[in-house]
Amino acid sequence: MKWCVQVLNPSFSQLLKSQNTRSEMAENGLLHHGKVLTVDTMNPNVKRVEYAVRGPIVQRALQIEKELKEGVKKPFTEVIKANIGDCHAMGQKPITFFRQVLALCSYPELLEDNKFPEDVKNRARRILQACAGRSLGAYSASQGIELVRRDVAQYIERRDGGIPCNPDNIYLTAGASDAIMTMLKLLVSGEGPSRTGVMISIPQYPLYSAALAELAAVQINYYLDEEKCWSLDVSELRRALEAARKHCRPRVLCIINPGNPTGQVQSRQCVEDVIQFAAEENLFLMADEVYQDNVYAEGCQFHSFKKVLFEMGPEYSDKLELASFHSTSKCYMGECGFRGGYMEVVNLDPEVKVQLTKLVSVRLCPSVPGQALLDLVVNPPQPGEPSYGTFIKERSHTLEVLAEKAKMTQEILNQVPGITCNPVQGAMYTFPQIQLPPKAIAEAKEKGQAPDMFYCMKLLEEKGICLVPGSGFGQRDGTYHFRMTILPPTEKLKIVLDKVKEFHQSFTEQYS
Amino acid sequence: MKWCVQVLNPSFSQLLKSQNTRSEMAENGLLHHGKVLTVDTMNPNVKRVEYAVRGPIVQRALQIEKELKEGVKKPFTEVIKANIGDCHAMGQKPITFFRQVLALCSYPELLEDNKFPEDVKNRARRILQACAGRSLGAYSASQGIELVRRDVAQYIERRDGGIPCNPDNIYLTAGASDAIMTMLKLLVSGEGPSRTGVMISIPQYPLYSAALAELAAVQINYYLDEEKCWSLDVSELRRALEAARKHCRPRVLCIINPGNPTGQVQSRQCVEDVIQFAAEENLFLMADEVYQDNVYAEGCQFHSFKKVLFEMGPEYSDKLELASFHSTSKCYMGECGFRGGYMEVVNLDPEVKVQLTKLVSVRLCPSVPGQALLDLVVNPPQPGEPSYGTFIKERSHTLEVLAEKAKMTQEILNQVPGITCNPVQGAMYTFPQIQLPPKAIAEAKEKGQAPDMFYCMKLLEEKGICLVPGSGFGQRDGTYHFRMTILPPTEKLKIVLDKVKEFHQSFTEQYS
Repeated sequence: MKWCVQVLNPSFSQLLKSQNTRSEMAENGLLHHGKVLTVDTMNPNVKRVEYAVRGPIVQRALQIEKELKEGVKKPFTEVIKANIGDCHAMGQKPITFFRQVLALCSYPELLEDNKFPEDVKNRARRILQACAGRSLGAYSASQGIELVRRDVAQYIERRDGGIPCNPDNIYLTAGASDAIMTMLKLLVSGEGPSRTGVMISIPQYPLYSAALAELAAVQINYYLDEEKCWSLDVSELRRALEAARKHCRPRVLCIINPGNPTGQVQSRQCVEDVIQFAAEENLFLMADEVYQDNVYAEGCQFHSFKKVLFEMGPEYSDKLELASFHSTSKCYMGECGFRGGYMEVVNLDPEVKVQLTKLVSVRLCPSVPGQALLDLVVNPPQPGEPSYGTFIKERSHTLEVLAEKAKMTQEILNQVPGITCNPVQGAMYTFPQIQLPPKAIAEAKEKGQAPDMFYCMKLLEEKGICLVPGSGFGQRDGTYHFRMTILPPTEKLKIVLDKVKEFHQSFTEQYS
Repeated sequence: MKWCVQVLNPSFSQLLKSQNTRSEMAENGLLHHGKVLTVDTMNPNVKRVEYAVRGPIVQRALQIEKELKEGVKKPFTEVIKANIGDCHAMGQKPITFFRQVLALCSYPELLEDNKFPEDVKNRARRILQACAGRSLGAYSASQGIELVRRDVAQYIERRDGGIPCNPDNIYLTAGASDAIMTMLKLLVSGEGPSRTGVMISIPQYPLYSAALAELAAVQINYYLDEEKCWSLDVSELRRALEAARKHCRPRVLCIINPGNPTGQVQSRQCVEDVIQFAAEENLFLMADEVYQDNVYAEGCQFHSFKKVLFEMGPEYSDKLELASFHSTSKCYMGECGFRGGYMEVVNLDPEVKVQLTKLVSVRLCPSVPGQALLDLVVNPPQPGEPSYGTFIKERSHTLEVLAEKAKMTQEILNQVPGITCNPVQGAMYTFPQIQLPPKAIAEAKEKGQAPDMFYCMKLLEEKGICLVPGSGFGQRDGTYHFRMTILPPTEKLKIVLDKVKEFHQSFTEQYS
């Protein structure tokens, strides 16, 4: 609803009024000869969905780009987009080995070509042999190619210091979004006060709120502690849970670590506390760990929920139901377009697993090129193989540059009076708090916009910088933020940060 | 539920009883320290989903393949799968031009390689220029890459003799399944007698019943006329609609043409009748046209709903809301694994379009390699270009072989006493009726199996042939069918048909 209002810009109350009247007419059959599908007759859950990362501000950015192309004069010559974790769009180069193998899988005649190293050819042959008809063009098993699932399981075992992983617990998916949606779809049931409640962090990645709106689940907000570097406190989880129990049945706890949009990396202690809490309160744990290789800050380390769970002993590891998610879209490879990903389920009821397998079979299978790419990500070149040197060089370079940019972002933003920024410990984002003058807040409210949307829209119009307002992710009432990716190339990121600095100063002056 | 029963094999009433008890316990919180997610607490809509094409018979086929590998003795040496429209898995070769361009898009360094024809290089460059960061690894716009949508629109205009198509009405999707699910998700609303009813053919492709179960929509069955080569009669549509109006609000009519699983190609008159009916009854029309290039029978021709709609004049073309679906998975290319597809929406309410765009944005974008492939399918090599000759040869060969196999299938099956088979006019399937002796039906019922499931399971165990029972698609009560693809290579298809013939005869004798 809100989304629609922002795009079309009628006053909210007008729209609401006209919709009510039209709904009644539709109910009474008076609109019988109008359209079948209108905003009044459509699925109301879909209407409630919002997705800020591709919301109105991005639409406007695209328009401005077109205007620039058409020669419209602006106070800038290009729009720089720091709104979405889209690495290749920002100039990050793909890993050579991955793309060589994918080329050979696409056109196997290249296996005869001497220019490709032996390990590239071997890997392409290995993947093709695991495909029906030796073609990326055949459907795979709905759960994913068995070979790829085995390779994923071995990757998880290595990552978690030998804790066993059963390939039968691996489901390959179209990125992590698909997996998260599928898992939530299984979990949500009940009506009224029995309706499933799902705990999500605030700020959150808006896939979660969108999925919950679509499924008409109850969204339970718990707040990350901005003062303590966006850490997660169990007492806040408990507060949120107890409040929610009055009106729904809380059954699921979602955690994003490293954090999106907040860039924190949770400590081992925190992961353990969360597991203990979920076990005590009988919650199904969903761990979004797509940034597991994106950890930059000294002293920070990624701790997988699976590993900590098993280290806590059978009292926990035999009991807690966990689904964890990973993707080919982030980390050092950034291959968003291939839509590769997986989920691991732990302690999932065997009958539910049958239901899950059945559910994913309706969509036949995830993209097979995406599955092939995932296989390479979890099983990259090994020491001694011809592609190893280049692979390590490319991976290290990408991660080093990201770490530098994480540091630079935090340093420059913290120099701006009125902007406070936590360290970017991991992931690809910063979520700084911005002080907005009361006059600006008042003007935004008059326009029916969230104050940080008003701010970001002005930043876009004046400086050509596209960020996402904090209101799209959720934030404590009365605080304002934006999310910015650290992905633009270093020299461009520097421009972005300087422009944000200039803008924030002039905006503050204008409204003081 | 049924699916789960068939897999786990407890008696239905036992299961029902134990589930009721457990449901009550879960309601009363007595199971608090058991699993969070069980078949009793999970989303009941998902539980109702069934998907025969990858159901228990296919699971058993995979098991048997493993047993054969392990050296278990069987009355056959390999399982031949004719259960799913998976062309490459059955040995169909990809189109060279498509795969060459995809290889260059995956690894653009190959653009410097002299072995690739100029048109391949030009097309790869053109696609990469339309991708953010010139990489298949970047996200695209959620609706799909603009260039690809423009090429799709031009393809539709050529197909429909110049009737205009607006690229803004094109949404790129992960195969047709994704598109159909998305459209239904928008359309289903209301509660009780106001719940949306969706008309689907019987027999149907089980994606439809699965989607409707998941969305808790009301499924309205209309029967195709087996006596008249699975044709569609408006009086039957009217009967089904009027009966349904007593308990739901019918708003959507789904048509599959050419037919799956039935292989018929609807006449132009039929398409016109359907449009007139939908317009009169104020129904949203969903046209599943993924087999539009798979037409084999003499005198048959594919008529797109869009074209016929516009030929009927503005009284219809200004009014009727239509979504039509196409895919890279079928036709002569058979690229299922890439998950490419599109939908065209006609007369969709502009506000609903905003909602649709928002909804698809939550999943970010369809697979970019799938979008690239779709671009090639709708815009193949042109006369005078270096790849044209090979392309035409490959396409014609594939379609000619399919036409031969369609004919052979119908001829051989109709020779078997007790099997009656309509001509395979199009698509990739035959759906013959099989006469089952009363003794066999009784034995199946004792085992809690549908009689045609019992038949197909025995065929699999005795002959190693994997087909899908008609009950998975729906059929008139008291009739039995199976669906068989015509995709195995000619010599293997001949073996399949001969084995089915032998089996049907011995089965009939055994139970007479």
